[in-house]
Amino acid sequence: MDGAVKTRLQSSGCPIQVSRILRPDDANIAGNVHGGTILKMIEEAGVIISTRHCNSQNEERCVAVLARVERTDFLSPMSIGEVAHVSAEITYTSKHSVEVQVNVMAENILNGAKQMANRATLWYVPLSVENVNKVVKVPPMQYSSPEQQEEGRKRYEAQKLDRIETKQRNEDQIFPAINVEPYTVGYSQSSLIHLVGPSDCALHNFVQGGVTMKLMDEVAGIVAARHCKTNIVTASVDAINFHQKIEKGSVITVSGRMTFTSNKSMEIEVFVDADHVLKSLTETAHAVTAFFTYVSLDKDGKALPIPTLKVETEDEKRRFEEGRNRYLQTKAKRMAEAMKCQ
Amino acid sequence: MDGAVKTRLQSSGCPIQVSRILRPDDANIAGNVHGGTILKMIEEAGVIISTRHCNSQNEERCVAVLARVERTDFLSPMSIGEVAHVSAEITYTSKHSVEVQVNVMAENILNGAKQMANRATLWYVPLSVENVNKVVKVPPMQYSSPEQQEEGRKRYEAQKLDRIETKQRNEDQIFPAINVEPYTVGYSQSSLIHLVGPSDCALHNFVQGGVTMKLMDEVAGIVAARHCKTNIVTASVDAINFHQKIEKGSVITVSGRMTFTSNKSMEIEVFVDADHVLKSLTETAHAVTAFFTYVSLDKDGKALPIPTLKVETEDEKRRFEEGRNRYLQTKAKRMAEAMKCQ
Amino acid sequence: MDGAVKTRLQSSGCPIQVSRILRPDDANIAGNVHGGTILKMIEEAGVIISTRHCNSQNEERCVAVLARVERTDFLSPMSIGEVAHVSAEITYTSKHSVEVQVNVMAENILNGAKQMANRATLWYVPLSVENVNKVVKVPPMQYSSPEQQEEGRKRYEAQKLDRIETKQRNEDQIFPAINVEPYTVGYSQSSLIHLVGPSDCALHNFVQGGVTMKLMDEVAGIVAARHCKTNIVTASVDAINFHQKIEKGSVITVSGRMTFTSNKSMEIEVFVDADHVLKSLTETAHAVTAFFTYVSLDKDGKALPIPTLKVETEDEKRRFEEGRNRYLQTKAKRMAEAMKCQ
Repeated sequence: MDGAVKTRLQSSGCPIQVSRILRPDDANIAGNVHGGTILKMIEEAGVIISTRHCNSQNEERCVAVLARVERTDFLSPMSIGEVAHVSAEITYTSKHSVEVQVNVMAENILNGAKQMANRATLWYVPLSVENVNKVVKVPPMQYSSPEQQEEGRKRYEAQKLDRIETKQRNEDQIFPAINVEPYTVGYSQSSLIHLVGPSDCALHNFVQGGVTMKLMDEVAGIVAARHCKTNIVTASVDAINFHQKIEKGSVITVSGRMTFTSNKSMEIEVFVDADHVLKSLTETAHAVTAFFTYVSLDKDGKALPIPTLKVETEDEKRRFEEGRNRYLQTKAKRMAEAMKCQ
Repeated sequence: MDGAVKTRLQSSGCPIQVSRILRPDDANIAGNVHGGTILKMIEEAGVIISTRHCNSQNEERCVAVLARVERTDFLSPMSIGEVAHVSAEITYTSKHSVEVQVNVMAENILNGAKQMANRATLWYVPLSVENVNKVVKVPPMQYSSPEQQEEGRKRYEAQKLDRIETKQRNEDQIFPAINVEPYTVGYSQSSLIHLVGPSDCALHNFVQGGVTMKLMDEVAGIVAARHCKTNIVTASVDAINFHQKIEKGSVITVSGRMTFTSNKSMEIEVFVDADHVLKSLTETAHAVTAFFTYVSLDKDGKALPIPTLKVETEDEKRRFEEGRNRYLQTKAKRMAEAMKCQ
Repeated sequence: MDGAVKTRLQSSGCPIQVSRILRPDDANIAGNVHGGTILKMIEEAGVIISTRHCNSQNEERCVAVLARVERTDFLSPMSIGEVAHVSAEITYTSKHSVEVQVNVMAENILNGAKQMANRATLWYVPLSVENVNKVVKVPPMQYSSPEQQEEGRKRYEAQKLDRIETKQRNEDQIFPAINVEPYTVGYSQSSLIHLVGPSDCALHNFVQGGVTMKLMDEVAGIVAARHCKTNIVTASVDAINFHQKIEKGSVITVSGRMTFTSNKSMEIEVFVDADHVLKSLTETAHAVTAFFTYVSLDKDGKALPIPTLKVETEDEKRRFEEGRNRYLQTKAKRMAEAMKCQ
């Protein structure tokens, strides 16, 4: 290994930090920053560090493309004028994928207060610049201990399984619906279309994962607000798998429907489809699907009760039960973690 | 009248010019700038000059709100890297409204070529900053001749009539549709939702008209592209009336459906609805409606033939006939104008 | 000093890094990133670190406002897809101002290449959040040596003098001119207006200095391109002094005219004026003025010859001579520095 390659390999391991001031356009009218803004910043840090790493040894130039984001919680709401510090580091590499851990810290530069706002795990796959259908080999990272590597391998296997599963359930559809009765699924169901612009694809000819996640959060937020008519914020996002690359010139359709409500939370399922305006649609599976959980906050930031979702069809009832299971599982997992910490 | 007020009144009459370089995100993948980008710039110039004028004599601070845009033609497509010069001047004032004429010139700064890209007429109404439901009196402008004033008065009366008419036809609805058969109305029908952000409302708590027009053009463009799967550009926009103010915190739903095709053009009807996420919907009429005409261009900028729209229901057939009438009227008017010029 | 304040003071000294991927909208049609984009990122890093520092000991909350940027050179052009790393640290504090040094590094994450793209020095003044006309005291920084402090004091005195001088020459005006003859001052003279939106003012009710500098670079770039009709890039910006705060809801007018050409460079003077659309104009001096130097590059990045500016009036001739003096001084200074390094 010559000197230049060695230096590149070393620097490829350096954590990276992306910071910026949060602006009015990043927030809702109550001043809470949209979860989608945070997800987009997280993904930007992730794509920089993983693309840098994957090019550190390879002769073949490649760009890292987001394949999956693990379930993530929004720990504390952020406000306009605060500085978001997003730091990313690589924590595992398999033959063809890179795991990136990202921390988001919110800093109030007027009083010095700092709070952890989010922690996320992202998986990237490097695609050749020459041939976007070719996955390039990932240079192995250096682990501090065999245990660290073994833990990473387990996370890798677990997410691989989950990816295959979601690909299968991925053929469900949101049909257009109008239902004027409040609290039904049809009442809050929403969708948007977005024509992919050049700035959505800065590094290659495909939409950056962060752009898609921001649109998904936008739709989910509108569904949540339509349901409860109060100030809402993103509480968590379940694992998101990206099953398709979305090309420049595509129209992205993002649809959201409410699936479940607990006393203080709402779960919204979001589907992303992409069709190229100049080509005919061939794919039937969604490009991306995910579950967003929202809560409603009063002026003092206290969680408000949520009106129960009225489910009518068999499918709606089944989805409500599935949502309840996800809700109970997450709750049980959290309690187990809290027990461990004691 | 004291000196300061006099100076302000004079300066309020000055034409203004808004210029900026057209960027990649302003254009489609073929490099043609979106009509919606131009409409947004036109409205920005209009709101500045009319707000400035309405505050030149009044003690009561007010903000001019877009009430109507007259039919406008996109004379020549603009490209990325060109500079758009938008100049606005006030051409008529009634007791409660201001007419603004706007010219858009495209300048290729690399070869010095200039082309008229658009000419538009906008009507603004000044609303009190203290009480947004109160229309403030407009200071009278100075006309260069009685004829000029009389011409303006006629334009004022004509648009007033049209506004009332469109308010009546304004209760039609676009129902969700899925139709997999190409060239049908349901196949290309599209809609989007947009959560109003702070930058959509720079001067007051209501969405600037230009923001709404840009969203309308975005939906119309997607409908057009889905229909013909080729590169499309906005050719003209029929008169647009703004029947409702759209408040900060609203969700705007913009829906478009194709109504008519001629050999070389498509007409798309666009509806805008707004509901406040924290309030219940009360209005039934649309906030805005308009007809956009699109053409499809090949690589050399030549108009391509358009596949004929397949109309199926009675309503679709009626709308197709109405579209044909608008098309023939516009054609006849243009021929008459061309005759006059000879 | 208690523990909490001590920690805040320490962390206030930490350098900060702002990174992001450069997007198509950040660049001109040749793919060169606008100098204005870089200036805006530089200022964002500066405002974060200086606001943080000024609040580290004060009980009175304050926001740092840009007062001045020292002359800065764009060392190498940046491209779309590269990552800009902007790092800032505080290098001097006077009683009422903070000096921040900023470095901009361009990283190509595909091949690992890194280049210094810019180095800048900014001066900030902290204004009270409660009373924006009150300048707050700056907590003193820790110097590593008395020499470091003394060097800083000299830089502080020098910029103070220059600020007073420019305030005096600051009453010149750009009158509208139409001169169709190429290479004259009137031919390339340009101006734009911008309505200040909420996202231009994230931390307070005033436009962030970086927003203004980006607009200034946009106008200067248009003037330069109109003059030479080739691909142009920002080479350097002379010291910029901010003489007035620009409030939310203002209309910013930015005007530029060419003052001087050397064989391979153009100097453009830029003026910024702001008037509030709802209030009367009182100020007569410009809010900001600056000189931008542009060069023209061929496809391989080599500097092209520049057509000589045709000066006609006495004022134009005087300004040309003044520009030549600035050009010769800069050249002499660079040669002296190059000699020192040998």
